[in-house]
Order: sequence, then C-alpha cells, then structure tokens
Amino acid sequence: MQKILGEVLEENRELAKKGRVASYIPALAKANPDHLGICIAEIDGNTYKAGDCDVKFTIQSISKVIALMLALMDNGEKVFEKVGREGTEDPFNTLYKLDLPYIDKPANPMINAGAIATTAQIKGDKAGRILELIRNITGNSSIDYSREVYLSEKETGEKNKAIAHLMKARGILEGDPEEALDHYFKQCSIEVTACDLAKLGAFLANGCKGLPSYGKIDRKTLSRNLLAIMTIGGMYNVSGAYAAEVGVPSKSGVGGGIMAAVSGRMGIGIFSPPLDENGHSVAGYGIMKSLSYRLDLSIF
Amino acid sequence: MQKILGEVLEENRELAKKGRVASYIPALAKANPDHLGICIAEIDGNTYKAGDCDVKFTIQSISKVIALMLALMDNGEKVFEKVGREGTEDPFNTLYKLDLPYIDKPANPMINAGAIATTAQIKGDKAGRILELIRNITGNSSIDYSREVYLSEKETGEKNKAIAHLMKARGILEGDPEEALDHYFKQCSIEVTACDLAKLGAFLANGCKGLPSYGKIDRKTLSRNLLAIMTIGGMYNVSGAYAAEVGVPSKSGVGGGIMAAVSGRMGIGIFSPPLDENGHSVAGYGIMKSLSYRLDLSIF
Amino acid sequence: MQKILGEVLEENRELAKKGRVASYIPALAKANPDHLGICIAEIDGNTYKAGDCDVKFTIQSISKVIALMLALMDNGEKVFEKVGREGTEDPFNTLYKLDLPYIDKPANPMINAGAIATTAQIKGDKAGRILELIRNITGNSSIDYSREVYLSEKETGEKNKAIAHLMKARGILEGDPEEALDHYFKQCSIEVTACDLAKLGAFLANGCKGLPSYGKIDRKTLSRNLLAIMTIGGMYNVSGAYAAEVGVPSKSGVGGGIMAAVSGRMGIGIFSPPLDENGHSVAGYGIMKSLSYRLDLSIF
Amino acid sequence: MQKILGEVLEENRELAKKGRVASYIPALAKANPDHLGICIAEIDGNTYKAGDCDVKFTIQSISKVIALMLALMDNGEKVFEKVGREGTEDPFNTLYKLDLPYIDKPANPMINAGAIATTAQIKGDKAGRILELIRNITGNSSIDYSREVYLSEKETGEKNKAIAHLMKARGILEGDPEEALDHYFKQCSIEVTACDLAKLGAFLANGCKGLPSYGKIDRKTLSRNLLAIMTIGGMYNVSGAYAAEVGVPSKSGVGGGIMAAVSGRMGIGIFSPPLDENGHSVAGYGIMKSLSYRLDLSIF
Repeated sequence: MQKILGEVLEENRELAKKGRVASYIPALAKANPDHLGICIAEIDGNTYKAGDCDVKFTIQSISKVIALMLALMDNGEKVFEKVGREGTEDPFNTLYKLDLPYIDKPANPMINAGAIATTAQIKGDKAGRILELIRNITGNSSIDYSREVYLSEKETGEKNKAIAHLMKARGILEGDPEEALDHYFKQCSIEVTACDLAKLGAFLANGCKGLPSYGKIDRKTLSRNLLAIMTIGGMYNVSGAYAAEVGVPSKSGVGGGIMAAVSGRMGIGIFSPPLDENGHSVAGYGIMKSLSYRLDLSIF
Repeated sequence: MQKILGEVLEENRELAKKGRVASYIPALAKANPDHLGICIAEIDGNTYKAGDCDVKFTIQSISKVIALMLALMDNGEKVFEKVGREGTEDPFNTLYKLDLPYIDKPANPMINAGAIATTAQIKGDKAGRILELIRNITGNSSIDYSREVYLSEKETGEKNKAIAHLMKARGILEGDPEEALDHYFKQCSIEVTACDLAKLGAFLANGCKGLPSYGKIDRKTLSRNLLAIMTIGGMYNVSGAYAAEVGVPSKSGVGGGIMAAVSGRMGIGIFSPPLDENGHSVAGYGIMKSLSYRLDLSIF
Repeated sequence: MQKILGEVLEENRELAKKGRVASYIPALAKANPDHLGICIAEIDGNTYKAGDCDVKFTIQSISKVIALMLALMDNGEKVFEKVGREGTEDPFNTLYKLDLPYIDKPANPMINAGAIATTAQIKGDKAGRILELIRNITGNSSIDYSREVYLSEKETGEKNKAIAHLMKARGILEGDPEEALDHYFKQCSIEVTACDLAKLGAFLANGCKGLPSYGKIDRKTLSRNLLAIMTIGGMYNVSGAYAAEVGVPSKSGVGGGIMAAVSGRMGIGIFSPPLDENGHSVAGYGIMKSLSYRLDLSIF
Repeated sequence: MQKILGEVLEENRELAKKGRVASYIPALAKANPDHLGICIAEIDGNTYKAGDCDVKFTIQSISKVIALMLALMDNGEKVFEKVGREGTEDPFNTLYKLDLPYIDKPANPMINAGAIATTAQIKGDKAGRILELIRNITGNSSIDYSREVYLSEKETGEKNKAIAHLMKARGILEGDPEEALDHYFKQCSIEVTACDLAKLGAFLANGCKGLPSYGKIDRKTLSRNLLAIMTIGGMYNVSGAYAAEVGVPSKSGVGGGIMAAVSGRMGIGIFSPPLDENGHSVAGYGIMKSLSYRLDLSIF
C-alpha cells in the first residue's frame, strides 16, 4: 500500500501544474501550489501517508458533509424539507433557480445554497459544533479555524450573501441570514491536514460508527444519506462524471482538499491546492482515479 | 428468497392505489392498475418470481440504458460530448436549459433530451439494434415492439419533438431529428416482462459480461458508466433521494417497470403501472425500498 | 423633404459596412449588401423616395404586424390569452421561458414564438389572408411570396419547429403546429419594396383607416395595440433603447427592411440588407435615428 | 376638466375594493384603502383636483424615475452600461437572470434590480439629492421621507438585499451594496401627495424644462429616455398592456401612487392604496384608462 501511494503521488504530481490556486481571497492565494499529500486511513486503524500530509489548509466545502451530519442528527430527515438531495448541472454557487416560483429549495447540501440552508438547521453554536465534531472524529483536538480566512470570506462573500438573503426572502432560511452565513464562513475556515480528512473519510466508510449519540436519526440512515449525497453532488457539476471515473463518494474543497470514503474499507485524504475550472484539486482528482483503478475502489 | 419476495409484494400492494396509470397515450391508459410483479435474477442464474411476472408492458425509459450501452460501444466515451453525465433537479422532459447559450448538451442520458441525443449516436438501425441487444441479453427472442404504442407516441410526442428540433438547432443532434425521434419512440415501445427486466439488470450487475464484442469501449468502463449514470439520473429528479433510500442503480419507465442492478449479486425487475407524480411506479419504488432493506442491497 | 431623404441616405450609407447580410438560408445570403433605399409615404398621399426603393426583398418579421392585425380582427383582444404584450430582454428566437411551468404564453407577438402563436389564431388560409391584406393596404396587387425563400425557411427552421411543438405541448397552439409554421414561413417570404413598407406604415400612422371591416375589434383599439406592441417589442431586445433614441413604432425584418409609423403624419420604409447582432438593418437603424432627429418624429 | 375629474373618480371608486393594500411592512399596511385622489397639473400651470389629493403617502417606486434622472445627469447615457432599457415579462423583484453568465445587467431602471443599479450611480448623497430634486420640481420644500417606512423597509427587504449583493458579485454595482440599498430604501420612503406627483408628471410632460443644469446629458435626451423607459417598464410586467390600453408614460408605486406624463399637455397624480396582483393601484389603473379615453391622451 505504501508503495502504491508513493507511485500514485508521483504519477499525478505534474497534473497540479494544469490548475490554479484559488485566489478570490488573499489567504487562499498564498497556498503553495507544490504541496501534494495523500493519506489513507483504513477502518481497522492502519494509516498510510505520502507527501505533504501534515500541512494545514482550510477545509472549505468539505465541511458541508460534517454540517449535514449535524443537521441530520439535530432534525432527522426533516432537513430535506429545506434542501434537496438531487444532483445539478449548475455550478457550486448557483442561485437563479431559487428565484423561480416553482422551486422551493436548493438542489442539495453540497452546493453553497444548500450548504447554507443545511448549516442554518444546526442547533446552537453551529460552527462551534462542527469544529467540535471534526475534532472528535479525527481525535485531533488541535484543529481550529483560521481567523484570517474566516474574516476574509466574510468580507468578500457577496454571492453567498445574495444566496442567504434570497433564501430568507423565499422562506427557506429561518432566523437571521447573516448569522447563518457567519457560521458558514467559519466552518469553511477550519484548518485540517490530509490525514485529518482521511480520518473523516474512514469514519464515513465505517458507517459513522462510534459517536455517543445520533440524535434524531439512526446511524444507518445517516450514513447512507451522507454517502449518497456525496455521490450525487460532492463534486458539484462533475459529480456524475466523477462517479463513472472514480466511483467513490467524495467531497472536495477549494482549499485543495479531497475527502473520500470507501465503504467498509478506508478513508482517503488528499491535499494539492491547484484547482481545475470546476473548483476541484486537479492532482487530487487524478489521484482518486489512479487509486480507484489500482485498489479497485469503485462502487460501480 | 421466494418467501421474502412474496411478503414484499404484499406489503407494497396497497401503494399502487396512490398512483395513476400513465394516460398521455391511449395505449398506456389501458394498463391494468392491479398488475404487480417482481422478478429477481441472480447472476449465477437462479430466478425468483412473485406476482404478474409474465405480463407484457412497454419498456419506455428503461430502454435508455440499453441505448446508452450501444452508443458507448459505437462511439466510446465520445458520446459524452453530446450528452452529460450529471444529475438534475429538472424533470424528465425538461427543455429550457438547452436554449441558454452557455449550455451545450443535455444533463444526462436518462432524461428525454439526453436519451434522444444518445440514441442519435447509435449507428445504423438504432431501434432495431436496441431490440436485438435486449433479445440477446435476455435470451428472449420473442421480445418485440408494440406498433400501437409506437404510433401513438409518434403522433402525440409534441414535447419530444420540440426537444429534438431544439437540439438540432443547437448542433447537439446530427442527422435528421425526426428520424432520431422515430427510433426513440420505437425503442420506448418495446414490450417486456418483469423477468426480462430482471435479466437486463443481472447483466448490468454482472459487469456486462458475455457480449461477443464491446466495440469502442472496454467492458469495465462501459459497466461503470451505466451504473453510475443510473445512480445519478435513473430516477430523474428524485435520483438522489432514491440513492439514499434504496441505494441500487435503477431505471424506471412510465409503463410501470423498474429495472435494478445489484453489482455482483442480482438484477431486479418490477412491474406495477400506477405512477407517482415524478413518473415512477409507486409500488415499484416501495418494493425497492423493502428489498434494499431486507436483502441489504444498498451500495452506500 | 426630398433633400432631407437624400442627405440622410448618404449620411448612413457607410453604416451598412458594419453589418452582415443574413445567411441562415442561401436565398437571404444572396442579397446585395449595397442596396439602400428609403421611402416616406405621408398619410395625405405624398410619397418621397431615395435610393433603391423598388428592389424587392422578403418582408420577414415585418409580416408579424400584419398577422397580428388579422388575428385581432378575427378574435378581438382574446388573442392576448395566447400571446402577451410585454417587452423582453430575450432575443427574437427565445424559447426557454415557455418550458417554465409558471409561464403560459410568449412575451409578445413580435418575437418568433409570439408570432407563431399569433398567426395560428388567424382563421382560414392564414398566409393567404396576410398576403391579401398587404396587397390591399399597399394597393400593390403584384406582391407575392417567394417560393424559394419559403421552401428554404421550411427546410432549415429547426428553432422555429422547436418553438411550435413546445407551444403545442403547452396548450398555447391549437391545431397542427406544422401547419401554423408553414403559414408562418410563407408570410415571412412575402416580397416587398421599401415603398410597400412605407405604405404599410402610413396605414398604421393613419389609425388603420380605410378597411371595409375590422371584424371583432374596433379600429382605434386595433391601431393602439399595433403601435404599442411595435414600440415595446418591434425591435426585439433593443426596443427600449430604440424607443429612447428614435421614438417611432417600428418593425424590422432580417431581409433588411424596417417599417415605421409616425402617428398622424407618415409611414417610413427602409431597405438595407446588412444586419447588426440583434438582427436589425444597421443602416436602417441609423436612418431612423437621423430621420427622427431631422423631422422631429419621436413620440417621447 | 374639473367635472371630468369628478366623474372619473366616482366611476373608478369601486375598483379599489378589488385590490389589497401592500402589507409587507406594517407602515404600508396601515394605509386607508378608501383614500382616493386625482390631481392634474397642466404644463401651463393650471391644476385640477378631485378627492384626497393632499393625503401623504410614500412615493415608493415612483422615485425610480427621479433617481434615473439624477443618474443620467451625473453620468450621461453611460448609466446604461450597468442597467438596460428593455421591457421584461419578469416581475418587479426578479433576480434570476442576473445569475445567468450571459446576462450582464438588469433589464431596466424600473424593476428593483435596475433601480438599485441606477441609484448606485448617483454621486454624493444619493437619497438626499433625490429628495432635493423632488422638492425643487414640485416647489414643495416640506416634502420629506418617512423614517418609519425607511427603517421598516431596511429591516425586511431581504429580496432587495439579495439583489444588491448579487449585483456586487457580478460587478454591476460599484461601492458598498448595503450603502446603495440604504439610499434606495430611503428614496422609496419619501412622502408625497397626488398633487406632488402631478407636478412631477408635468415636469416630464414639459420636456424636463426649468432645471438650472442638466449635467452630463442634454435636456431632450434626458426627457426622451425617461418617457421611453416609463413606457417600456414603468408598469413592470404589464407595461405593454398598459401602453395599449392607456398609452401614457407612467410609473406606479406600492404606496398606491401613479405618476403619468402627457407630453406637451399635463402631469397626472393619482392616489389609491389597494393594489392588484402586479403591485399597481387598481383604481389608479382604471382612472388612467378613463382619463386616456375621455381626454384622448394616448401616444398611440
């Protein structure tokens, strides 16, 4: 396994040159495009690493999976009254459908609108509880959010502000849209490593086993919703192509991370900042293709 | 297994009363709403049946999977230059996106637009070859299309005509749009039984093994594309919810059929004409939920 | 007046070089880009000409005004149950809105969808009656349609076919959509001169006076609808800009014609084939600006 | 004239019962539905009144005309780089088009998005200057804005906030979107009477004569833009129907006001709070139809 990881890493290193580091906020633009790391955490506890596995980066949209987990534990499948579970060809920050009178919720919890509508349904200190849950699952209590990235996102997130206010106007968001957004920006600013992501993936791959309580949902329903929704929407408007090519429930973030869950086997965490036009780590996508092929990971 | 099938059948029989038989053409409206059948074909050859498994009905949209198979064998993954692989919240007969200048192909081969764009890419006698392939896979050479349904669809399919002409105008369809449509209407009119569907599902569940040739695609890539695309789009705009609740790559048709493929295990064919508002067999959906639970079929 | 016409003609002659002759059908592509003509027909009978006023060209979308006239005479303002009277930023051949469930008719009778929905409401031989009415109004019984252009349009009009079938599917069109389209293609193929257009404009400018009968609408309501709808939609998605810059109810056609009506004063006919990106005669638009300024024609 | 006004008032009084007073903010919901007033201000100075002409109400969207006037004086027709001049079938608060990549500005300055994009282009204290200009034109220095309405709008205007942030994200708004919105809410809260509106209309009807300076635009271009844009968009998605039925450049507000300009003749101000489904004063619309008929006011 260790050997395979090293080979896969090198095979895909060049791909990173085809991408561009996210630059919409200064804090992200400072990422080192040469960073490249893979970590695999098997559900029986073994861990394999290659490359820059201990470099911290912001979790960004991968936090949407954890937010969905909490929202489901707090509310059960009632969550889906305010956010759908369907794939979409529209990009991650799409908004227009929410202005059409016959549409009453965002497509899924992986696009920004759906993620904000999901986080808004978490009780109490939404971002704080997301952070806490990530610490618990990874066993890494040193994880924290980056105040610099959080403040940057907050200042510049005009599209997300538009989304939140529109959802408030349409009755999708309850409570203060600015407050939901604040938590959303904070959850995206949590800093993790590839190994932290691998552990999150392993937790999902293991049917979410090990939490003290699952609140208003049973463990199996929770787990299936998370994996199904990652499959239909985790890679936004290329989720279907990714399902055919890789076939592993995954979620990417513009910080350069990818978190993947191979049911019954392992979690995978990848870090490589340069992104393709759809906002996914270019090398990360390539590595997932290689790993799926080499380790026969596809669910299809 | 036989016992489970019988129980599942009876548990879901009442559901059919919540649905309505498709009525947009007279031939479909004549279907008997009380018909209900399940057939399971294991990949090792065992077959289990319950209810009306030998009643014929038109395959309708389930033919889209076979059409995609042929288009992929004829063209390889170049097929996806003219049709995407992404889920969509829009309904099966959606059209509007194809009029937006920044959209260049239908979302996926399971919605009508994508299916027409897929069939159009089959070489030679498209509908004839689809029929032939269905006969080969099921080993049932008596399968044929219903001339009555075909002519009915041809006469009334205004929305599909709009879709085909729009795709011609946008450069998505090559050749004569009316001819592509004619084949599409014909493929939808092929008459099958629940057991035929189970055999088609078993073929997919077995990695498409057994064809003499795969043309321009390798067997594994073919199989993964089919299963992934059924997952993200086989149940149209409830594919994601179905993935979470059932977790088995499936395709439904307005004739009342559902065809499902449980990788490495079995194919499932269901027949019950009354449909829900999204065009899926109500009892069929319920049966798939029951079977997934009882037989632990979910990929998630 | 004669002198002004000559000057305005020369001032705008260069503009034609910025445009491109319509080329979607061969018959239109053969137009001579150097042709340029203006004709003014005052409502008291005086006529002024400059340039190529007697060259024939196809009326194209200008026929939509005459079709609306007939549809209103046949049905009264009930026409507007199937077609709106509102401006739109969408282009002349827009389609997508008609697929949205909350939209029930095209925006106005000047865009293609609205024009087809209008022609479909004319009783009897739609295109024949449009031709007859144009002959009556202009007093030019030699006007006829071009069989070559008609057949060309019929063969290539994929977008219009999509529009017609979609409107049939949505219940906007009654009767056979192909038949309505056939009449629409025929009405667009009627050949006129700039002087014919000037006479049509003068008729509108004179409150539609002089017809033996107005059917189900009174003359004033007819006239106001025509002039108002030309103002809000006659120049498609630049109608508002044109209203501010020119301020004269007008209709353009891709054959290079513009027909304008200055209430109580005159009709204007212009012919110059090269078109701008919105499908309007470039020199024609410029000439209308010059004339509006020189002759103080704006209603605003 | 006085007699006609009285008759028209009584003829349309019943219509008010078909409408509903705006209720999205408490301050508007308190309006007296029985209030009904008409004022005509001829451009030679004569004024005619009937009914509740001196009751104050908030100007709401009618302020968009004055904002456009100032934006044009400050920037000339460059204003239209950020806002179009086209009619739209979409409602006053439409947003979705601004999320489509091929759309780069709102349709026109009369819908909310366009109005915010217009106000944002006014230099200095935007709302303060709008108030000042209204005072100057009406000669009524007691006009002021309602702090209660302003604060209410500010608190609840979620859709407008979404619009402003989306336009910021798309590069349509420069500067702080919240600040532009603040001025927009303030301009809508200015309190006027039917007679104030009549004077604003008379000013427009008189070609905007009498201002000490017109800044970067000439008076005629200013006047034509205002009247043309009121015609294509002043009544939102019924502007075209209104043009055919009434034929007078007008602007309505949800406070119950309508301001109309009959070129070369008069301004009209109407006040009646109950609104139809499109947000226009029901009795006001009826009165405009009656006046147009009785006084032959249509430009068509």
